[in-house]
Amino acid sequence: MAAAPLAGYKYEHFLVTSPHPYVAHVEINRPRKLNAFARPQWLEFGAVFRQLSEDAGVRAVVLSGAGDRAFTAGLDVQAASQEGPLSGGGDGGDLDAARKAKALRPHIEEFQSCISEMERCEKPVICVLHGIAIGLAIDISCCADVRICAADTRLAVKEVDVGLAADIGTLARLPKIVGSTSWVKDVCLSARDFSAQEALAQGFVSQVHGDKAAAVAAATNMARTLAGKSPVAVQGTKELLNYGREHNTADSLRYTTVWNSVALQAQDLPAAMTSAFTKKRPTFEKL
Amino acid sequence: MAAAPLAGYKYEHFLVTSPHPYVAHVEINRPRKLNAFARPQWLEFGAVFRQLSEDAGVRAVVLSGAGDRAFTAGLDVQAASQEGPLSGGGDGGDLDAARKAKALRPHIEEFQSCISEMERCEKPVICVLHGIAIGLAIDISCCADVRICAADTRLAVKEVDVGLAADIGTLARLPKIVGSTSWVKDVCLSARDFSAQEALAQGFVSQVHGDKAAAVAAATNMARTLAGKSPVAVQGTKELLNYGREHNTADSLRYTTVWNSVALQAQDLPAAMTSAFTKKRPTFEKL
Amino acid sequence: MAAAPLAGYKYEHFLVTSPHPYVAHVEINRPRKLNAFARPQWLEFGAVFRQLSEDAGVRAVVLSGAGDRAFTAGLDVQAASQEGPLSGGGDGGDLDAARKAKALRPHIEEFQSCISEMERCEKPVICVLHGIAIGLAIDISCCADVRICAADTRLAVKEVDVGLAADIGTLARLPKIVGSTSWVKDVCLSARDFSAQEALAQGFVSQVHGDKAAAVAAATNMARTLAGKSPVAVQGTKELLNYGREHNTADSLRYTTVWNSVALQAQDLPAAMTSAFTKKRPTFEKL
Amino acid sequence: MAAAPLAGYKYEHFLVTSPHPYVAHVEINRPRKLNAFARPQWLEFGAVFRQLSEDAGVRAVVLSGAGDRAFTAGLDVQAASQEGPLSGGGDGGDLDAARKAKALRPHIEEFQSCISEMERCEKPVICVLHGIAIGLAIDISCCADVRICAADTRLAVKEVDVGLAADIGTLARLPKIVGSTSWVKDVCLSARDFSAQEALAQGFVSQVHGDKAAAVAAATNMARTLAGKSPVAVQGTKELLNYGREHNTADSLRYTTVWNSVALQAQDLPAAMTSAFTKKRPTFEKL
Amino acid sequence: MAAAPLAGYKYEHFLVTSPHPYVAHVEINRPRKLNAFARPQWLEFGAVFRQLSEDAGVRAVVLSGAGDRAFTAGLDVQAASQEGPLSGGGDGGDLDAARKAKALRPHIEEFQSCISEMERCEKPVICVLHGIAIGLAIDISCCADVRICAADTRLAVKEVDVGLAADIGTLARLPKIVGSTSWVKDVCLSARDFSAQEALAQGFVSQVHGDKAAAVAAATNMARTLAGKSPVAVQGTKELLNYGREHNTADSLRYTTVWNSVALQAQDLPAAMTSAFTKKRPTFEKL
Amino acid sequence: MAAAPLAGYKYEHFLVTSPHPYVAHVEINRPRKLNAFARPQWLEFGAVFRQLSEDAGVRAVVLSGAGDRAFTAGLDVQAASQEGPLSGGGDGGDLDAARKAKALRPHIEEFQSCISEMERCEKPVICVLHGIAIGLAIDISCCADVRICAADTRLAVKEVDVGLAADIGTLARLPKIVGSTSWVKDVCLSARDFSAQEALAQGFVSQVHGDKAAAVAAATNMARTLAGKSPVAVQGTKELLNYGREHNTADSLRYTTVWNSVALQAQDLPAAMTSAFTKKRPTFEKL
Repeated sequence: MAAAPLAGYKYEHFLVTSPHPYVAHVEINRPRKLNAFARPQWLEFGAVFRQLSEDAGVRAVVLSGAGDRAFTAGLDVQAASQEGPLSGGGDGGDLDAARKAKALRPHIEEFQSCISEMERCEKPVICVLHGIAIGLAIDISCCADVRICAADTRLAVKEVDVGLAADIGTLARLPKIVGSTSWVKDVCLSARDFSAQEALAQGFVSQVHGDKAAAVAAATNMARTLAGKSPVAVQGTKELLNYGREHNTADSLRYTTVWNSVALQAQDLPAAMTSAFTKKRPTFEKL
Repeated sequence: MAAAPLAGYKYEHFLVTSPHPYVAHVEINRPRKLNAFARPQWLEFGAVFRQLSEDAGVRAVVLSGAGDRAFTAGLDVQAASQEGPLSGGGDGGDLDAARKAKALRPHIEEFQSCISEMERCEKPVICVLHGIAIGLAIDISCCADVRICAADTRLAVKEVDVGLAADIGTLARLPKIVGSTSWVKDVCLSARDFSAQEALAQGFVSQVHGDKAAAVAAATNMARTLAGKSPVAVQGTKELLNYGREHNTADSLRYTTVWNSVALQAQDLPAAMTSAFTKKRPTFEKL
Repeated sequence: MAAAPLAGYKYEHFLVTSPHPYVAHVEINRPRKLNAFARPQWLEFGAVFRQLSEDAGVRAVVLSGAGDRAFTAGLDVQAASQEGPLSGGGDGGDLDAARKAKALRPHIEEFQSCISEMERCEKPVICVLHGIAIGLAIDISCCADVRICAADTRLAVKEVDVGLAADIGTLARLPKIVGSTSWVKDVCLSARDFSAQEALAQGFVSQVHGDKAAAVAAATNMARTLAGKSPVAVQGTKELLNYGREHNTADSLRYTTVWNSVALQAQDLPAAMTSAFTKKRPTFEKL
Repeated sequence: MAAAPLAGYKYEHFLVTSPHPYVAHVEINRPRKLNAFARPQWLEFGAVFRQLSEDAGVRAVVLSGAGDRAFTAGLDVQAASQEGPLSGGGDGGDLDAARKAKALRPHIEEFQSCISEMERCEKPVICVLHGIAIGLAIDISCCADVRICAADTRLAVKEVDVGLAADIGTLARLPKIVGSTSWVKDVCLSARDFSAQEALAQGFVSQVHGDKAAAVAAATNMARTLAGKSPVAVQGTKELLNYGREHNTADSLRYTTVWNSVALQAQDLPAAMTSAFTKKRPTFEKL
Repeated sequence: MAAAPLAGYKYEHFLVTSPHPYVAHVEINRPRKLNAFARPQWLEFGAVFRQLSEDAGVRAVVLSGAGDRAFTAGLDVQAASQEGPLSGGGDGGDLDAARKAKALRPHIEEFQSCISEMERCEKPVICVLHGIAIGLAIDISCCADVRICAADTRLAVKEVDVGLAADIGTLARLPKIVGSTSWVKDVCLSARDFSAQEALAQGFVSQVHGDKAAAVAAATNMARTLAGKSPVAVQGTKELLNYGREHNTADSLRYTTVWNSVALQAQDLPAAMTSAFTKKRPTFEKL
Repeated sequence: MAAAPLAGYKYEHFLVTSPHPYVAHVEINRPRKLNAFARPQWLEFGAVFRQLSEDAGVRAVVLSGAGDRAFTAGLDVQAASQEGPLSGGGDGGDLDAARKAKALRPHIEEFQSCISEMERCEKPVICVLHGIAIGLAIDISCCADVRICAADTRLAVKEVDVGLAADIGTLARLPKIVGSTSWVKDVCLSARDFSAQEALAQGFVSQVHGDKAAAVAAATNMARTLAGKSPVAVQGTKELLNYGREHNTADSLRYTTVWNSVALQAQDLPAAMTSAFTKKRPTFEKL
């Protein structure tokens, strides 16, 4: 982890470095709290990924937790019980249920929106799950493009065990990103732990490595590969796959046509084709 | 199976018992006919699951067939050929095709609607497939939340072999609940048998056990676990996962927000949180 | 492969034979160019499958490449760089970007539409992937119903490596036909090769055989089986599964009802039922 | 209104007569309460329209209120404040908000579902609005096919004035059945009265007549005309228009194709065509 | 109507002239048969509009009927009763209902698809309704962008009177292009005539002129105006409005963004802006 | 308009006053530039409406332009031609078309998103159109709930005349908020002016008043009325109508059920009901 800090990324709870040109590595940086999230964390999380999305100097992103113990243990339950709409105390005490609901809605939406910034980030994001990775960890990783796991990761859709249905995205996205609904229902309803191997077998992650370091290395390597390719091609592929997940085939084909009617005008296509003939590594302009 | 009958559940073709508090076990109870379904069976099936859905004393449901030979052999073809719109005889003989179609539509819709009651049931349903489980067995099990299998189960989407496309839900739901469309097309077009192991590998079921008794025991155990958790959390999770399967991510996140803006006001959240600190098993009010 | 040519199918780039009654075998027949596609090929591809769709003498189709080296190596890059909208030269040189986009759109749409004819073909299509099967090979095979693979097949969603996002259907369809989005993103973003075994494990294909001959034999055997079944049942099943993939469950159930309200009036139902009792192989009228 | 009662329709709160062959006239029959609805009324309302939908002896339906004062004054607020989930008293008093919400949901859904039966009724329904027609009156009339008005009708989407958003269908359907959203928002947000003339100008109703008797006569005449036409054509037209309102054009065209592929096999088509040549009034079989 | 024929448009049943530069006038040219459509007509209709869509020399289209008596009297019932799938005779006589339906589906789809070519045509189409304009006339005009009427036009959704539900697009599109569903249901269910004035009041047409000549002149004038504007702007506006009609607002905004991200790169924007300052009429390159 | 400034609303380009308790009046305050919008204006526009949406002291909003000449003349073309992505000069000059498109997309999305804040504002917004109201004026007013017009307003969807398709929302929303697509296409394709009376006849606005002052007075009066009603009822009605415009009826009914399952627990319902009996004006808690 001797990678250089990425210039211009100053955050309190996230460490952003650049292990290779065009590659950013984001670490959730609150290891003493098992990288748990309270409101300051999720607000910053959104800001980090907005900045990465707009930064032409970044073409691929790796996300992991700082430290050896956890990717993230999820919501900072202690903070949530002390302030915010779940704390139960304070001024909301004598409101009627409709008014309490009105106060809760923007809170949930802000939380969802910050986490969704990673999905909206135009660069591919490879998420390395390791150590404790429960609750919000699953919501977050569902927003990544590729998930990679350390062998000893402890995974769980933990929300049912704290008395609520997961509302930051797991229940909306998980049925769309793995194949077996029987398995999805099992882990979401029971809140039980599942292992890296089970996650691999179910297609939730696509690689398992021996430990966190190996998983981060594999993710970084993948990111480096993606960063060497045409950013028009890579970012268009991410956009069209995300669109395809949410729309029917006819709509997706039409959107693809309109998208590529301009993307095909990039210099990347002749650059890549020439490279195929000359066997030289192509260079692509910033995007 | 010495579980006590569940009070208030009097049905002719279904046996409803309660192996644990808050757990109901429904058995398709027509073993001499391999648990095949004619109209009286599917009408009762719908009624059973409507009652379970509304019963605050039930928090999780196990479904199996009675007897050792079959979960269900599907449609009672003999009955269907003697009466009803597929019988071909009787008064429909000289109607034109549009009028016959008009007569068939409400028949199919009623059948679909009765089976769909299990999907609409607000409590999680764990379906144990065993013995013969063909045709309608697949339509039914597609409406369950979790599918568990005995090792010797004989599974098949059998309808093509009786000259029709499955119309009670398999073709609508199966592509949504397993990952490989290549496999779905294979088994649906060919009507071939597939084994418990194949069902597990494809994610159609999420556990295989040695025999029916072991599978029922595992299902009952899972149901018992779910029944001990917050019903607000468990039932909300089922609702949001089902909604997520049918809607795009943006719609699902919005629905989740509105749903949880009231669910988070339940006593279950503080009860579960307190329990996490006190290490005592929480108790939840009826829902 | 001594199968007789299928009468009435005269194509320059495709060979159509009939290894069994009601079974057609289509071979992409440009082996010296690794079965690569330029415009004449995709126009004919569409025409072949339109004809097969309407031909009552065909009930199941097998698709493979001719020769031992490739299913298809994808787009004929040499031809594309010399003529057509990607060639960069010619009259489009001084148009503004909007006018170039206008010229590209119908080109992409025509290409998409020709390949989609295989998906629209009302008969089941079993695609045998073998040898080199990259780029357009994946777009094409995503339109098949069942995919079968030879063990040594080299598969890749190759488009990113030539500087573009795949636009002939892979990005729209692949997320809908395999379960793991993590894997889909991996192979689509990285353009890396994947093996037949990996394709099987991910559910992209449903069988792997030792070599091309064995894979074609398995596909032909499956096609023969399907061709012996009720065409009303088989073609209805294909239609309803494709519809189910694109629509929510409520819409699919309604469409199924209307579809089957006439399909159930076919003679295939009593023919198949009688056959079940008499143990004689049923015969079905042409459809 | 000396029309004969329609045999087989015995309801406590609704009067069903037959002013012409194949025409049913349903009257909301609680004039002393201004035809207001409590639970017994809406349960019966659903039952009436289910029966009409299935009755081959009925081809068109007219709905009005009994008596001169009101079509309906809407929800029976007095009854609602004494029992049911809005009454505030009783056993729900000490439930948490999530449990109260759980109790309210099936109540709202049952109410919605009963009123929606009129939309689901396969025969065209012509709704005559007259006298007081506020609140639920609008929800109900939005489920009709054609709306006709007496000149002195007092119309209002009244729910905001009793402290709630209309939840029995007005807010879901009104934006889909009139053109001006500016007007829809105005009347729904302000709960103000609007006149028959305004309703006509906005396209909410399509005819205004001098008084209730004239409006009922016009509706009955229209129903008589529809009842003389091919029921396959009329009921298919209703189905396809309702489907078209809810789906995009491509889906609607496909559904239309499948629907008409059997409807065109009816005897109604040759009967109507022959009639066009012979100038004799055609007769159509029951449907 | 002394306009010159448009070079390259040779059709048997349609006359295509060019009254102004960039304006095409298409006339349905079968006046002795009241411009009725049999299969040769609709196949050509599709071909005409495909050609117009691709012709950079055309920027706006006017459609009318030839002769004074009819825009079109709709389906050529005589031809339909003698051949084709509605003729009832011939080889389809002893097929079962499912096989007849299979034969009818491609017939309906081909007919729908040919008429829909006018909607897909990328240039704006102004439809002039005059004389008899019933049945298919409404299906056709629903595919136009703007509808203009002669004062004496006789309009009707006539299909119910020949025993069928309209299946060439009226029932799918009419609810989307006029505001009052009460009116749409009235005219579609009753098949009654409605006048030009009624069509104007309901928003089905947007202008009524004294006679056919005046209506054609007004349409031609509007077409001439549109033809003088930026084709990038005009054709983009048509595309985005059609897209907006079929999709929700979020999807439409996104599609608009992608569309305009290239359209804004056209020379039309600076050309039009410069023109606004110089007060000179701008010239736009062909598109 | 001597209304007091609304405390806490400090904006450079917008004036926010409070003519009545709970009513805010927003004026576009750049009259010397005909209230035209450049980037600083639209960024502030979004901020104003976000603040209004969250402000429990505001229950209804009126929007107008400052000064007598214009609601807004739309985009500040001069500013747009000097800086930003449409300026054509600067650093974007030598980028390829795909990279220019990439730069344009976030620009369009930011602009759309700021204007859409008015639609997302949870309080009803009444828009007063007056004077010049072209181009962006229509995009903005399409996001309001109710539109009111001064008699001399000059309205136009002007974008085609500056060489582009409107991309800030008009083409996505206008077909959904007025009934006649023929009229929508006419005004959007031709960019012609239309009058207040025409806007009223087409349902785009729902009131026309003699001059701006009278229109603002009417809007303020309507806002005052809405502000006196239950905010739970009014804001729920807005939410459900907006949802209903974008979703099918079944989805809308379900969402309504979930929404009202908590809204009905507000104190507003008993307060309003009591008020109906006591004839006293009800008071509602802040929301």
